[in-house]
Amino acid sequence: MNNEGISSRFYQQALELDANDPLKHKQELFQIPLGKIYLDGNSLGPLPFSAKIRAKQVVEEQWGEDLIESWNTHDWIDLPITVGNKVARLIGAEEGSVICCDSISVNLFKVLASALKLAEHKTTVLSQSDNFPTDLYMVEGLINLLNDSSAQQAYAFKRVSSADIERTIMEEADNIGVLLLTHVNYKTGDVFDMQRITKLAHAHDIIVIWDLAHSAGVLPLELQNWDLDFAVGCTYKYLNGGPGAPAFVYVAPKHLALLEQPLTGWMGHQQPFSFAPQYQKAQGIEQMLCGTPSIISMSILDAALDVFDDVNIKDIRKKSIGLNAFFQSYISEFLAHFGLNLTLGCNHSATDRGSQISILHKDAYAICQALISKKVIPDFRSPNVLRIGFSPLFLTYSDVYQAATILAEVLISKEYLRHEFQITNKVT
Amino acid sequence: MNNEGISSRFYQQALELDANDPLKHKQELFQIPLGKIYLDGNSLGPLPFSAKIRAKQVVEEQWGEDLIESWNTHDWIDLPITVGNKVARLIGAEEGSVICCDSISVNLFKVLASALKLAEHKTTVLSQSDNFPTDLYMVEGLINLLNDSSAQQAYAFKRVSSADIERTIMEEADNIGVLLLTHVNYKTGDVFDMQRITKLAHAHDIIVIWDLAHSAGVLPLELQNWDLDFAVGCTYKYLNGGPGAPAFVYVAPKHLALLEQPLTGWMGHQQPFSFAPQYQKAQGIEQMLCGTPSIISMSILDAALDVFDDVNIKDIRKKSIGLNAFFQSYISEFLAHFGLNLTLGCNHSATDRGSQISILHKDAYAICQALISKKVIPDFRSPNVLRIGFSPLFLTYSDVYQAATILAEVLISKEYLRHEFQITNKVT
Repeated sequence: MNNEGISSRFYQQALELDANDPLKHKQELFQIPLGKIYLDGNSLGPLPFSAKIRAKQVVEEQWGEDLIESWNTHDWIDLPITVGNKVARLIGAEEGSVICCDSISVNLFKVLASALKLAEHKTTVLSQSDNFPTDLYMVEGLINLLNDSSAQQAYAFKRVSSADIERTIMEEADNIGVLLLTHVNYKTGDVFDMQRITKLAHAHDIIVIWDLAHSAGVLPLELQNWDLDFAVGCTYKYLNGGPGAPAFVYVAPKHLALLEQPLTGWMGHQQPFSFAPQYQKAQGIEQMLCGTPSIISMSILDAALDVFDDVNIKDIRKKSIGLNAFFQSYISEFLAHFGLNLTLGCNHSATDRGSQISILHKDAYAICQALISKKVIPDFRSPNVLRIGFSPLFLTYSDVYQAATILAEVLISKEYLRHEFQITNKVT
Repeated sequence: MNNEGISSRFYQQALELDANDPLKHKQELFQIPLGKIYLDGNSLGPLPFSAKIRAKQVVEEQWGEDLIESWNTHDWIDLPITVGNKVARLIGAEEGSVICCDSISVNLFKVLASALKLAEHKTTVLSQSDNFPTDLYMVEGLINLLNDSSAQQAYAFKRVSSADIERTIMEEADNIGVLLLTHVNYKTGDVFDMQRITKLAHAHDIIVIWDLAHSAGVLPLELQNWDLDFAVGCTYKYLNGGPGAPAFVYVAPKHLALLEQPLTGWMGHQQPFSFAPQYQKAQGIEQMLCGTPSIISMSILDAALDVFDDVNIKDIRKKSIGLNAFFQSYISEFLAHFGLNLTLGCNHSATDRGSQISILHKDAYAICQALISKKVIPDFRSPNVLRIGFSPLFLTYSDVYQAATILAEVLISKEYLRHEFQITNKVT
């Protein structure tokens, strides 16, 4: 290969960018496996040392030694609120408007049912057809349940392309009661204008639910200022809470009084430990709780969020765009030198997408496996997407430089065609 | 005090019983805090060493080092089934009929909605009025949701005393579609005859859901032989899975084909990683999954269940009755010597209750606090229940002897009346 000019220019750039990175000190807060370049923090964030320490504490000391008393002495009972408030700060939400519990899917069910009830006679749910599947499936499940119990098939689910969302809102506002959108598309990384769409929906008397799975912790959000109704989000991606960590749910304080979410478990009761025979919902955001919370996972998440102390999300976003654009420029020039180019499955400017880039390639799966064999870890999304995530708290420009170099070499050499990279895993 | 004759007789008995205990070797598999007698394994089981080791592995090695690849390399994706099958073995269920996920409350919603659909025109849910509150609340939530979407208020919820369940089944079978009962009452410990009631309900064309929260791991169950329809259960009590560990759900294989549970998250899809736009349920028990499972908690639970290797549940039940009856005889004789007696809030024979005894006392809360101050840990259930649990895998007869002695002394001395024991905790 004879692209030394390009490589050394970008290498110099990477070193300079790293030297001036205001977030550089954050890298040492994470356990990053030696020799790995981890570009999948958008799927599963790495282990913060604070979480590692807390995991040991909650298991060995709190559960192991203090046992049942820990509900009081270690404030287990308040964890959903404690963690919720930490998340609230990162997404521009009011204190007491976010709670941590269950999965995104379960939380979506709660807010979808609540929103449909608030929407009264407007009985259609609108969503993007390329939404993350679980979001679509949860709407299907709820609507089937409601329609089955009624003779009139009252509820409907309409899916349109992301590009058609705004037009559909304007044209079919009479029927649409609830709009469900994912802020950053899981596959492409493309971003909706949350503020504008929320405003448009409200102007047409539509309640909006945002899924923040790929936004929380990496994009500046102002849930309160943008007048959001409901949101759900994930804590194991950019919030680094650990595999399957509990999700969060946001409810605008103005909706709390009238809300009736259907998963009325005992933890959402006004006084869970009164063991009253009739359900009476808590007044605050606690009404969104259902069963007993997952204390070990939530404690680990609680500690993981400490890496966001003293960080401004705007600085994170700035570095995210920086890493993303740097990767794109470098690999594009590198490949062009060899007469190749990338087909992007996302907006072409890093400022118009979340903290990832989506590359389309018919051999995306094998390319992903070839990269993994070289300790560069992106992920694959069926059928043809190579998804590369740029988590700004632990990645350096030098990491991204190295990853781009290796990807370019794999693409140029076509070594991904080797048989060993075609073998499919259960989770792809 | 001059009850030495009684005490020394029971002390000798305890030593003999311990010497002949076939489960004695299991005690060393648990971390039991030095000096504590833990009588609350029915609320939160103690930490098995296997779980402690696994917690470190899943956090530090699997998450920390192998990151996203662990879904395949450490079989994270199969955990709900792996753990489900381990639980199945303990409750007499078929391989592939139990899955581990979510909380009891969320799982109840899934099976309640499914069962109501199977019950077709029979639209009343029957439950015991003294059921654990979350079970009652979940029925309320589902029925409100269904009735709101229908003009006819089709669904109804009937609660009757435990004693009236069988009579109500016979008298109102035309309307009752679903019966929801908790096998062992959380407060009293009293046990329903699961086999007889299931048979009676089936004879009246009623689908039955059993809550096994206080049964799994401590009472012999034969879900398959007793022809159960649905069950849910808890893993952090007698299964020692850790605080807020994920729950389990059982579905009789005969129901799987027609079932439509409404919480249709992506993990219940036939091919989650095809990211198909339409939901298509998995054929097997995986259809009961919803969102991404809590991997850390579920891994810990997976390891915790290893303490049940080579144990016969019948031996556990035998020791449970033994500990329970021993406690009752000893403390009754001790107190009688001082002119006191216990008011039981449960069946009087240990063979007729689960692995706990329920003592009624107007100062139950303060008595509980006084015991905790002496490192004897029972729990309190509002308004007047002192609940004492006998987990047979880690408790010895000598432990129970000591605990009974201390409780008797507290009751005789009335030291629970001291001000310091009246201060209420958040979780009581």
